[in-house]
Amino acid sequence: MALIGDTEYFKGIGEIMYEGKESDNPMSFKFYNPEQVVAGKTMREHFKFAMAYWHTLCGTGGDPFGPGTKEFPWATATDPVEAAKQKADAAFEFVTKMGFDYYCFHDYDLVDEAKTLSESEKRIQEIVAYLQQKQEASGVRLLWGTSNCFSHPRYMNGAATNPNFDVVARAGAQVKIALDATIALNGENYVFWGGREGYMSLLNTNMKLEQDNIGRFLNMAKDYARSQGFKGTFFIEPKPMEPTKHQYDFDCATSINTIKEYGLENDFKLNIEVNHATLAQHTFQHELQVAANAGMLGSIDANRGDYQNGWDTDQFPNNVLETTEAMLVFLKAGGLQGGGINFDAKTRRNSTDLEDIFLAHIGGADTFARGLLIADEVLRSSPYESLLSKRYSSFDSGKGASYTAGKLSLTDLYDYAQEQGEPEQISGKQELYENILNQYS
Amino acid sequence: MALIGDTEYFKGIGEIMYEGKESDNPMSFKFYNPEQVVAGKTMREHFKFAMAYWHTLCGTGGDPFGPGTKEFPWATATDPVEAAKQKADAAFEFVTKMGFDYYCFHDYDLVDEAKTLSESEKRIQEIVAYLQQKQEASGVRLLWGTSNCFSHPRYMNGAATNPNFDVVARAGAQVKIALDATIALNGENYVFWGGREGYMSLLNTNMKLEQDNIGRFLNMAKDYARSQGFKGTFFIEPKPMEPTKHQYDFDCATSINTIKEYGLENDFKLNIEVNHATLAQHTFQHELQVAANAGMLGSIDANRGDYQNGWDTDQFPNNVLETTEAMLVFLKAGGLQGGGINFDAKTRRNSTDLEDIFLAHIGGADTFARGLLIADEVLRSSPYESLLSKRYSSFDSGKGASYTAGKLSLTDLYDYAQEQGEPEQISGKQELYENILNQYS
Amino acid sequence: MALIGDTEYFKGIGEIMYEGKESDNPMSFKFYNPEQVVAGKTMREHFKFAMAYWHTLCGTGGDPFGPGTKEFPWATATDPVEAAKQKADAAFEFVTKMGFDYYCFHDYDLVDEAKTLSESEKRIQEIVAYLQQKQEASGVRLLWGTSNCFSHPRYMNGAATNPNFDVVARAGAQVKIALDATIALNGENYVFWGGREGYMSLLNTNMKLEQDNIGRFLNMAKDYARSQGFKGTFFIEPKPMEPTKHQYDFDCATSINTIKEYGLENDFKLNIEVNHATLAQHTFQHELQVAANAGMLGSIDANRGDYQNGWDTDQFPNNVLETTEAMLVFLKAGGLQGGGINFDAKTRRNSTDLEDIFLAHIGGADTFARGLLIADEVLRSSPYESLLSKRYSSFDSGKGASYTAGKLSLTDLYDYAQEQGEPEQISGKQELYENILNQYS
Amino acid sequence: MALIGDTEYFKGIGEIMYEGKESDNPMSFKFYNPEQVVAGKTMREHFKFAMAYWHTLCGTGGDPFGPGTKEFPWATATDPVEAAKQKADAAFEFVTKMGFDYYCFHDYDLVDEAKTLSESEKRIQEIVAYLQQKQEASGVRLLWGTSNCFSHPRYMNGAATNPNFDVVARAGAQVKIALDATIALNGENYVFWGGREGYMSLLNTNMKLEQDNIGRFLNMAKDYARSQGFKGTFFIEPKPMEPTKHQYDFDCATSINTIKEYGLENDFKLNIEVNHATLAQHTFQHELQVAANAGMLGSIDANRGDYQNGWDTDQFPNNVLETTEAMLVFLKAGGLQGGGINFDAKTRRNSTDLEDIFLAHIGGADTFARGLLIADEVLRSSPYESLLSKRYSSFDSGKGASYTAGKLSLTDLYDYAQEQGEPEQISGKQELYENILNQYS
Ligand SMILES: [Co+2]
Ligand SMILES: [Co+2]
Ligand SMILES: [Co+2]
Ligand SMILES: [Co+2]
Ligand SMILES: [Co+2]
Ligand SMILES: [Co+2]
Ligand SMILES: [Co+2]
Ligand SMILES: [Co+2]
Repeated sequence: MALIGDTEYFKGIGEIMYEGKESDNPMSFKFYNPEQVVAGKTMREHFKFAMAYWHTLCGTGGDPFGPGTKEFPWATATDPVEAAKQKADAAFEFVTKMGFDYYCFHDYDLVDEAKTLSESEKRIQEIVAYLQQKQEASGVRLLWGTSNCFSHPRYMNGAATNPNFDVVARAGAQVKIALDATIALNGENYVFWGGREGYMSLLNTNMKLEQDNIGRFLNMAKDYARSQGFKGTFFIEPKPMEPTKHQYDFDCATSINTIKEYGLENDFKLNIEVNHATLAQHTFQHELQVAANAGMLGSIDANRGDYQNGWDTDQFPNNVLETTEAMLVFLKAGGLQGGGINFDAKTRRNSTDLEDIFLAHIGGADTFARGLLIADEVLRSSPYESLLSKRYSSFDSGKGASYTAGKLSLTDLYDYAQEQGEPEQISGKQELYENILNQYS
Repeated sequence: MALIGDTEYFKGIGEIMYEGKESDNPMSFKFYNPEQVVAGKTMREHFKFAMAYWHTLCGTGGDPFGPGTKEFPWATATDPVEAAKQKADAAFEFVTKMGFDYYCFHDYDLVDEAKTLSESEKRIQEIVAYLQQKQEASGVRLLWGTSNCFSHPRYMNGAATNPNFDVVARAGAQVKIALDATIALNGENYVFWGGREGYMSLLNTNMKLEQDNIGRFLNMAKDYARSQGFKGTFFIEPKPMEPTKHQYDFDCATSINTIKEYGLENDFKLNIEVNHATLAQHTFQHELQVAANAGMLGSIDANRGDYQNGWDTDQFPNNVLETTEAMLVFLKAGGLQGGGINFDAKTRRNSTDLEDIFLAHIGGADTFARGLLIADEVLRSSPYESLLSKRYSSFDSGKGASYTAGKLSLTDLYDYAQEQGEPEQISGKQELYENILNQYS
Repeated sequence: MALIGDTEYFKGIGEIMYEGKESDNPMSFKFYNPEQVVAGKTMREHFKFAMAYWHTLCGTGGDPFGPGTKEFPWATATDPVEAAKQKADAAFEFVTKMGFDYYCFHDYDLVDEAKTLSESEKRIQEIVAYLQQKQEASGVRLLWGTSNCFSHPRYMNGAATNPNFDVVARAGAQVKIALDATIALNGENYVFWGGREGYMSLLNTNMKLEQDNIGRFLNMAKDYARSQGFKGTFFIEPKPMEPTKHQYDFDCATSINTIKEYGLENDFKLNIEVNHATLAQHTFQHELQVAANAGMLGSIDANRGDYQNGWDTDQFPNNVLETTEAMLVFLKAGGLQGGGINFDAKTRRNSTDLEDIFLAHIGGADTFARGLLIADEVLRSSPYESLLSKRYSSFDSGKGASYTAGKLSLTDLYDYAQEQGEPEQISGKQELYENILNQYS
Repeated sequence: MALIGDTEYFKGIGEIMYEGKESDNPMSFKFYNPEQVVAGKTMREHFKFAMAYWHTLCGTGGDPFGPGTKEFPWATATDPVEAAKQKADAAFEFVTKMGFDYYCFHDYDLVDEAKTLSESEKRIQEIVAYLQQKQEASGVRLLWGTSNCFSHPRYMNGAATNPNFDVVARAGAQVKIALDATIALNGENYVFWGGREGYMSLLNTNMKLEQDNIGRFLNMAKDYARSQGFKGTFFIEPKPMEPTKHQYDFDCATSINTIKEYGLENDFKLNIEVNHATLAQHTFQHELQVAANAGMLGSIDANRGDYQNGWDTDQFPNNVLETTEAMLVFLKAGGLQGGGINFDAKTRRNSTDLEDIFLAHIGGADTFARGLLIADEVLRSSPYESLLSKRYSSFDSGKGASYTAGKLSLTDLYDYAQEQGEPEQISGKQELYENILNQYS
């Protein structure tokens, strides 16, 4: 049920309901039916949809060529904590009207940073107390918290990777406070996205020292959180570039390498953002698979990029084909480990109606729901799985099985190849697989 | 001294000599002065320039829109082994006229593959015997060997990652023969570039099985080579895509992750190709640095791409600014570990004069020589190194040093930050670093 | 009805029929129902689907890293004209089994080029006579002909833009013969795709002279064809790069500029290839719109690229969302002017079963059919059109209408703006438009 | 001589002088020697270097992930006109200390926009009067003015291409005021860069109407300016994307097409920005050549992008190889038609020292100076020009000359080709051209 604060911010908009594909009500779900069971779980359970505080409540539409365009009715109070409470009211009104169960935040999404660390910490504690009540009243939970160590000018040369130790320490202090807040709100996970952890120019950069420093930093943060009783998972969110020229957490493979290099593999998994995948010249589904292979498919930041532009447009998902391919990986991997699907997406700068925020989230949720339904059908009813098994069946028995069991040497392969002669040609049949997907969608 | 076989293939072209920048002889080095000492070593020792058999002797200029344009005078014999000997003569004539010390090859660059594995092996053994004589006579050495497990149609679905075990075995047999050849020729290293090790469509791919299979394969190959007395280093050559849609050895970070995942870190390093770096949206110097940080800066495939096109143009290096930035990393890392600089580059399809091959290698060698000279001067005579040290000096003592020594906790950082207040703003001064480089070039 | 020659090449495959979405027969259309009327025309009339001779019958799967993988049963005769007739038989068997009405070719797709121009011309005349009979017997027609002036080594520096007049002349002779063939076969259109018309390096290029030469060349070709009674349309097919570093016909806007610059606007329109659009950093639908705005939406080469790779993958269409957006432009522009939809697409190198060629074309045709059905429904039944009209309604009357009528001056705008004050903010509602498309698909 | 206002803003920095390559003073030109004559003109005359008001004086370093980092001492006054005068003082201090002769501005760079159009106009008139005095006192001139019709939220759906006529009118009013200011300041040119003239989504866009509207708008602006006695040139500045998904002025070829389509060819030329060229997948030199071929090489916005990132980084030029290739086109085209070289570039967000702005401009000027010197030397002293002439010599006489004179028909070409037989193969010798450039640099 919608939880409305002192002021109703989204007036005229009620709870968004599933009405099916034929409904002509734009303010309804056409495919996302929260209680519908797919592959053994409700859609609600599969997805754990979350609202992103930063875009939905703080993002007024500024871009490098112009300031914000959106005047939010919850951004009116002059007292920062008061303004933060209004924003929290808007947040919970929005999440409950959408019928979602989760939200995510950076520390200074919740409340504006103050002049000093102490004052900032105090503000966060105040708003955390308020959010505890809102969570209680609504049943909405915190999917993950994180710390914004990239916007403030002090982080212009990096946070944990800053060449100046004083800034590293300041970032550590900020992360400590954000961890405290996340724990206080029973946050289920904690994310590290290294917005300025990378370099603008390799010329003025000691990359090895910076990367070792980030390894130390993540370990310290993890140790502290564990000492405070945090049981959730830590996520690294890869991104290849932007805002820095090169970000150290380039993609999933790079981040897995970092996680292992610094001994973090028991505590860290990955939070995969669609647009970050495509900026790295991967597909979203590729990155999911890489994470799944490493047992690190933790969480998803749902959005999309623009294939013609090389920056992070953070548009809402609308490509059902892409989502279907992603949901194939998702279902076969057994879903996410600890995380959920957070709409790290924003309405366009010129989408200035308040209702646009709802329309965008509806479209995004429907895109995922539809992908899930199609992928489930493909896996259950189509020839897809049997085609795939057959393709790899040479490893199920005989020499192939000995190979995967590690029992053969290079000379064994040589001898076998000499006996067999030229291998049979077997079509990869990519077009057939693609047709199957389209038929079921 | 030039080693010319029964026929002189590059008639009218003598040994390429260093004549300095003012020479108006296009067939001379303007900057590459092999015996000139830079940073404690001769240029010859620093670079270990190598000729790539495939481009220089086999590449006739075909592209997806047309066949080869170049008729090589050494490609006339109808008997494959005879033709191979002519090609070897051309190879050694070219390398010695260039004044280089090394060459590199894929197995079937040396001699055309035969109908059967046995016959192919026999051919390779014959040409290896011939090459042993050529090496002896010229002093030219084998920088590395490798196996072409990507061109033949049997590898269309992958070699070590093929869904069909029979093809995996065949690849293993081929690698065994290529290792034998490399060892017989005292090859200093052995390279794996996974041309078809990746996928065309994730839909029909079991990525986990394929990657585990490649891990097994590399271990088998390594074990076999070591059992045969091979003391050299194995290199993985990363590339993000092409010919497959996604190549498993995407970039250095990904490949380092693979190397460690499969326990290969004591035997494998990286062979970094410029154009592969840029296709992965990195710079060449970035990839060198990543490898150096992991102690895996093994070898270089020198070429360049086109910044407007997304495919592997394999052009000869001509960008001194890029090479200078690369040589900064190179010199600070102490050079290459085992490898050298192999011109994995080809003249354009419409560069059809035989002399163009010389002009191209001259331009490439000069570009590296000039980069080295400038980088050395920048490191020795400019404020560059002191600027950089100063930038990170907060970690040399005090709390910063305690931090890098791993002696601080997150609460220590918090306490320190509370005491210090807002850190001082320190410019990154990127433009100054860039100006210094340009001034010294 | 299928037209089978002396040999049936696609044995076991009958005519592909529309069976609807629920059919589990992979060798049937799920959406393309040729006689179904949509927006006043049958699908057959809307699309005029054509088979591309080069990919379907000549493309054996070679790529820059390996030779062809596919052995076609029609490529067995040693006599070139005999082989060409077998290929023609296969072509017409394929087109008629697919139920398509059209085909397209380059001159030397039909028959291999001979050593001399005269001999080549003779071969073409022989195969043209044969094709006339096949057309007669089947009712299949020639959508367009073209000339391959890019594969032969003589064109390595360009054809009409070659720095050597002798090559320009040779290209002219070849185009004359190809025009004669097209006219003899009642070809409905003629295409110019400038595969080597561009440059590899600006350094050795006189761009102005080369472009003026191509203007002269196109005029000569047009004048000749008109003098021979050709009534069809000429198309330029834009592509931004590949095989040259820069192609002069970069995209639609560039090509329209060229067409007008050289006075060709009454005879020339555009043939838009999907993958060429995306390589130029446009969308397919963008390029359609640009052409439509200029009255030059002539024809379509249907395929798709890979968003992560920067080269021309020529994959078969499978993205219904993309096709739907394209069909919105298509329907609103009143369809194509003279052309049709030619599958300039190839099965993957590792799709080696003969049936894969059918599966691929089925998937492609279904993708277009589905896009058309959805676009038609969106235009007829959804709020899409009224939303769009309303968005621009300020130009329907009053000062806005005066503006579009050209009746206002800058000072009129100034005066009006002074009176009006700050304009009202109006949301662009992009997410709503996107949701509508997805709901109807 | 430096013109310093009431406050000296760049304290400790004097006039930047040419000191030559060996100087160890980072605050001196190493190559830009204003009075040095190259190819018949001084460097000063060739380049007409200009400071960009927006980046240099207004750009505090904000990006999509954080606010500005730079506190400018001239941005302290609370009264907008007073603040504008301080900024103007800083501007002229900077320009004169750099020894440049020109500056460029957008209207609201000069002074902050007010609440109403009238009030804004009044502010602009006040600051224009002040600038007139500064120009008078310093001899510094206005290279071009322009209007910022993209930052204010009212332009979020476009300015001249807005779907709402009221916004179009408002843009018209703003342009009128900006034209008045430019004329009052004897501006030598006027620029149109269409920051929001394009679309975010083709779905909600009537592209034809929007483009026709921009055609009308440019004509009105031109007519107005001419009526006010403006004798300068109008420039369109192409950019392919950003901030909109697709900008109508995509590249030079597209913009030339627009200019001709709307009859603007007698008044409009192009202003080419390096980074915009590369975002459009062209090179800078390519775009210069396209403009030169059309007689529209008007002006240059100097900067550079990052080859790995797809957005407009607006870094200062530092790539001498790129600039050299550009200067070859520049010199052969006879320089710029009316414009100059404006540093549309900004120091990095983390370059926060005031001196960094000088260092950046010094590096940029030196990069152009060096490119000019090398290009001139290549043209005068190297074999470059004779190689190039020879390459096209077949068009200088005989049939080739008849061809370029338009005297041949397609059948003439056919007859000639029949006589000639296979043309001779002629190498493009790209590597030789590249080596020559590098030797002379
Ligand atoms: Co994210
Ligand atoms: Co993002
Ligand atoms: Co290589
Ligand atoms: Co390469
Ligand atoms: Co095409
Ligand atoms: Co294509
Ligand atoms: Co600009
Ligand atoms: Co720019």
